[in-house]
Amino acid sequence: MNGAEALLRTLVSSGVDTCFMNPGTSEMHFVAALDRVPQMRGVLTLFEGVASGAADGFARMAERPASVLLHLGPGLGNAVANLHNAKRAASPVVAVVGDHATYHERFDAPLQSDIHALASNVSGWVSRPGGVEELPGAAAAAVAAAYGPPGQVATLVLPADVSWSEGAEPALPAVRRVAGVAGVAGGVDAETLRCAAQVLRSGEPAAFLVGGSGCRAEVLETLGSIASATGARVICETLPARIERGAGRFEPERLAYLGEMALAQLDGLAHLILVGAPAPVSFFAYPSKPSWLTPPDCKVLRLASGGDTCSVAVSSLAETLGVTSGRPAQESRAAGHTRPEAPAGGPLTSEALGRAVGALLPEGAIVSDESITSGAHAWAASAAAAPHDWLALRGGAIGQGLPLALGAAVACPQRRVLALEADGSAMYTIQALWSMAREGADVTVVILSNRSYAILNMELKRVEADTDGTRAREMLDLGRPDLDFVSLAAGMGLPARRATDAAGFAQALGESFATPGPSLIEAVIVR
Amino acid sequence: MNGAEALLRTLVSSGVDTCFMNPGTSEMHFVAALDRVPQMRGVLTLFEGVASGAADGFARMAERPASVLLHLGPGLGNAVANLHNAKRAASPVVAVVGDHATYHERFDAPLQSDIHALASNVSGWVSRPGGVEELPGAAAAAVAAAYGPPGQVATLVLPADVSWSEGAEPALPAVRRVAGVAGVAGGVDAETLRCAAQVLRSGEPAAFLVGGSGCRAEVLETLGSIASATGARVICETLPARIERGAGRFEPERLAYLGEMALAQLDGLAHLILVGAPAPVSFFAYPSKPSWLTPPDCKVLRLASGGDTCSVAVSSLAETLGVTSGRPAQESRAAGHTRPEAPAGGPLTSEALGRAVGALLPEGAIVSDESITSGAHAWAASAAAAPHDWLALRGGAIGQGLPLALGAAVACPQRRVLALEADGSAMYTIQALWSMAREGADVTVVILSNRSYAILNMELKRVEADTDGTRAREMLDLGRPDLDFVSLAAGMGLPARRATDAAGFAQALGESFATPGPSLIEAVIVR
Repeated sequence: MNGAEALLRTLVSSGVDTCFMNPGTSEMHFVAALDRVPQMRGVLTLFEGVASGAADGFARMAERPASVLLHLGPGLGNAVANLHNAKRAASPVVAVVGDHATYHERFDAPLQSDIHALASNVSGWVSRPGGVEELPGAAAAAVAAAYGPPGQVATLVLPADVSWSEGAEPALPAVRRVAGVAGVAGGVDAETLRCAAQVLRSGEPAAFLVGGSGCRAEVLETLGSIASATGARVICETLPARIERGAGRFEPERLAYLGEMALAQLDGLAHLILVGAPAPVSFFAYPSKPSWLTPPDCKVLRLASGGDTCSVAVSSLAETLGVTSGRPAQESRAAGHTRPEAPAGGPLTSEALGRAVGALLPEGAIVSDESITSGAHAWAASAAAAPHDWLALRGGAIGQGLPLALGAAVACPQRRVLALEADGSAMYTIQALWSMAREGADVTVVILSNRSYAILNMELKRVEADTDGTRAREMLDLGRPDLDFVSLAAGMGLPARRATDAAGFAQALGESFATPGPSLIEAVIVR
Repeated sequence: MNGAEALLRTLVSSGVDTCFMNPGTSEMHFVAALDRVPQMRGVLTLFEGVASGAADGFARMAERPASVLLHLGPGLGNAVANLHNAKRAASPVVAVVGDHATYHERFDAPLQSDIHALASNVSGWVSRPGGVEELPGAAAAAVAAAYGPPGQVATLVLPADVSWSEGAEPALPAVRRVAGVAGVAGGVDAETLRCAAQVLRSGEPAAFLVGGSGCRAEVLETLGSIASATGARVICETLPARIERGAGRFEPERLAYLGEMALAQLDGLAHLILVGAPAPVSFFAYPSKPSWLTPPDCKVLRLASGGDTCSVAVSSLAETLGVTSGRPAQESRAAGHTRPEAPAGGPLTSEALGRAVGALLPEGAIVSDESITSGAHAWAASAAAAPHDWLALRGGAIGQGLPLALGAAVACPQRRVLALEADGSAMYTIQALWSMAREGADVTVVILSNRSYAILNMELKRVEADTDGTRAREMLDLGRPDLDFVSLAAGMGLPARRATDAAGFAQALGESFATPGPSLIEAVIVR
C-alpha cells in the first residue's frame, strides 16, 4: 500500500478515526485513501480555521485526538489561531500538513514556505518523514505525542511523494508517556500533599484555583467537600477549556476576566493552591496595573499541573485531610443557585438571554462559549441548569466558538451543542455553519448581536487610550452595514431566525433544542 | 506624544497612509491615535486574512505599501496565507503586529506565542522595538525594508507598552535601497545584455518568460518589438502578480498552469530569457512528471530579476539590437485578438461568461482573478478588451481574490474592480464583502459557482490518486448544502443577484459596472 493508506491505517489503529479537512493537490492521496480506510471519517470544512477549531472541540469532549488535514504553509497558517487555542487548552490534535514532494522543494514553487517555522508556534511536536518507510512510525509517534500529557498539537508534515510512494505498512500504536513525577504513584508528590494539607488546616485564608482536568465534576465535587470542611474557597480559572457543571454538581466561583475585579476577588488570600490551572495573571497588560493577580503576600502552591494528576492529587488530599466526599459539597452547593424561569416577556437583554439559556438547556448539553461581553449572564444563570459541559476560550484567539461547536457535536452525536457566539467573533470562522449543515450536527447557534466589538470599546478605556474622536470608534463598530446572520446562515444552508424580544428568543431556543440538526438564532441584544 | 502616535506619524511621512486593520486590546493605542493623525486612513476588516490580502492588492496597484494592523500571534496567523501571496508577488507591505507589553511576556498569558517564528514564514524583515525610543526609527526602517527591491513584507512587532509610552518623536523616512547590481547603471549587467542579444541574433528558437514588473505595458511593448524583429516568443508567467493588457497593448502568450501543457508549450526552445520571472517549474509535483519545465537542452538566461531592472534591461536590449518600439509590436498584436460581443442568449458556460467580461470590461478596470478552473476563458476573451490590469494568484494560497479586490479599490478609487472568484476560493475570506460595502468600494464580485472544488477533482486524477469511491469525492464537493452567495452577500450588506443564463449574466455585469459601489453576481456555471 502507499504511504497515505498506511498513514490512515496507523491513525485509525492508534485511535484517531476523525479527520477535519481542507485538502489541496498535495493531499490528494490522503483523500483518495479514505475509500480504502472507511474507519476514518472525513469532515470537509471550507476554511482551515474551522478544521483546527473542530479538532480542538472534538478533543475536549472525546478526550482523544482528531486529525486535521491542511494544505502546505498557507493552510497551516489559516489553522494557527485555533491550533493556538487547542495548545492552550492542552487538547490533543494531530495536524497533518501536506507538503511538496521532497524533490520538488528545491524548485521554490509558488506555495513553498517554511512550514516548520509556522508549526513551531503552536506544536509541541513536529516531524517531517523523508521517506515512505518513516511515515507510519512517525504517524504513530504523532498520536502518542498529541496525547502528552499534557495534550498538545503534534504536527506531521507529509511530503506528497512520501504519501504516494508504495511499499508502506501500517505501524503499531506507539507507547504513550505516563503522567506525573517519576517514581511517585499517580504523579503526586508526598511533600506537596503535606504542604497543602498544612495550609488548609492552618485556618489562614486559602483558595484552590482550578483549571484543566481539575474542572471535571468528580474533582470539583471532592474540592467542594474539602472546601466545606476547611473553609477554603474553590475558584475556577476565567476561561476553562471544559468544565462539568449544572444541577447536582459543585459550582466553583469563577475568576473575573478584568484584572481589577480579579485582584479584588483574590484580595486577602494567604494561600492559593493550583489544581490544573496556571497561576493567575492578567489577560493583557494595562498601564499602571499589575500583571500578577495574587496579593503580594499570598503563597502559591502547585498541587497538580493537569492531566490525570488532578483527580489523583485531589482525592489524595481529601484522604490526607480525612474529608469524605458527598454531604459537605451538597451543603455548599445549595447556596444560591436556582434554575431560572425562561423569560415570558420584556426586552432581549443579555440578562434575559442568560435566563432563557439557564431554563432551557437540555441535559447533557455542551456549551461552546465565545459570547465575550454579552454572554456573562448565561454562565451565571446556568449554574443550576441541567448538567452540562461548558467550553470557554482558553487561548483567547477569537474565532473558536463555531468550529469548537462543530467538533464537539461530531464527538458527541447524542448531545445537543449550544454555541453562544458574539457577532464580531462569529465572523472569523463563519464558514463553520456550512459544515454543521452538511454533517447534520445537533448545534444551536445563538449569535449575540450587539453590532460592536463591545469588549474593545471597553478595553479602549481600560488601556487609557480613550478618545473623543470618531475615527477610532469606527474601527470598533460593526454597524454600517449591519451584519444579517439570518441571511448568512441561509447562505450556508442553515435554518435561521431573528429574535428581538425575550419571549421570542426563549421560544426560538426551545424549538431549536427540540429539533434535530443545526439552526441559528440571531439574538439582537438591547445595549 | 506616545509611541503609537509617533508610529502613525512616521508611517504617514514615509508614504504609508492606509491601514487595513483588525485590532484587539493590545492595539488600542494605535487605534486611538487615528484621531490625532487624520492622514492615516483606517479600513476595518472582520478577519485578518482580508486585511493582509487588501494590503497586497493596494501595493500591487499603488506601488507603495499599505500597513496592516494585527492582534498578536493568532492575528498574524490568520493573515499568513495572504501575506504569503504578497511575498510571492513582491508586494511591499508593512505588517504591524501588536504584542503584549514587554514586561507582561514572562507571565505567559493566554495569547502569548512565538510571533517571530510566525513572521519569519512570510517576512523579509522583522523587528520588535524594546522601548518607545526605538519605535519611530524601526517604523521608518520597516517602510524602507518593505519597498525593497524586491518588495516584501516587513513585520514590526509592537509591544503594548512601547505603543502607550510617552516621549516619542516621529522619525524621518529611512533611505531606501537602490535596485540592481553594484556599479552597473540601472542594475543591468553588460555581459548579460551581450549574451541575450547574441541569443536573439542566433536564429535559434528563443522565448522571453516575463513576470513581475516585466508585465507592465511599456516593457511588454518593447518585448513585442524585439519579438517581431528577432522571431523570439514572449510568454508571461502563469499567474502574474499584475499585468497591463487589453486593446492597444502587446499580449504575450501565457504559460499553462498544467505542467504537461507547459512542457508542450516550451518544447523545442533552445533559449529562455527571464525578465522578472523565475525559471518555470511545475506548481505541484506529480508522480513521474518533471518539476522543471524547460526542455533538457534549453539554456536559461536571467536578464532581469524584477523591480526597476526589467524596464531598463529590456530597453537596453532593444537598443543593443537596434530595435525601435512601436510598429512591429502593432503587427504582432493584430494577430488574433478581437474584442468579443457580449452573449445575447444561451447557457451560462464559462466560455460565455468570459465573452461577457471581454465585451463589457470598462476602460481602466482592475481584474482580481481567483477564478481557478472556470475563469480561463475570461483571460482569453479579454485580450482585446478595454485596457485593464489583471492581478493573478501569484503565491497560490487560496483566499486572495476578494481581499485583493478590496485593496485595489481602495488604492484606485477612480477605477472599477472586477473580482472573478471561484465559489470554493471565495469562502476562505468571504468577510471581505462587508468591508467592500462599508467602504463603498467600486467592486463587481462575480462568483463562478460550479459547486465543486473542480480543480481538485482534476488534480485527483493528475496525481494518479483516482478512486472509484465516493468518500474521496465527497471531500471535493461543495454541494449538500449548496452555497447561496446572494444570501451571503445580503448578510454583509452587498446588493446581489443570481445569473443562470448568458444573457442574464451579461446584463447583470453591465449594470454592476455602471453602478457606483459594490455588488455581487452569483454566476451559476453550466458544468
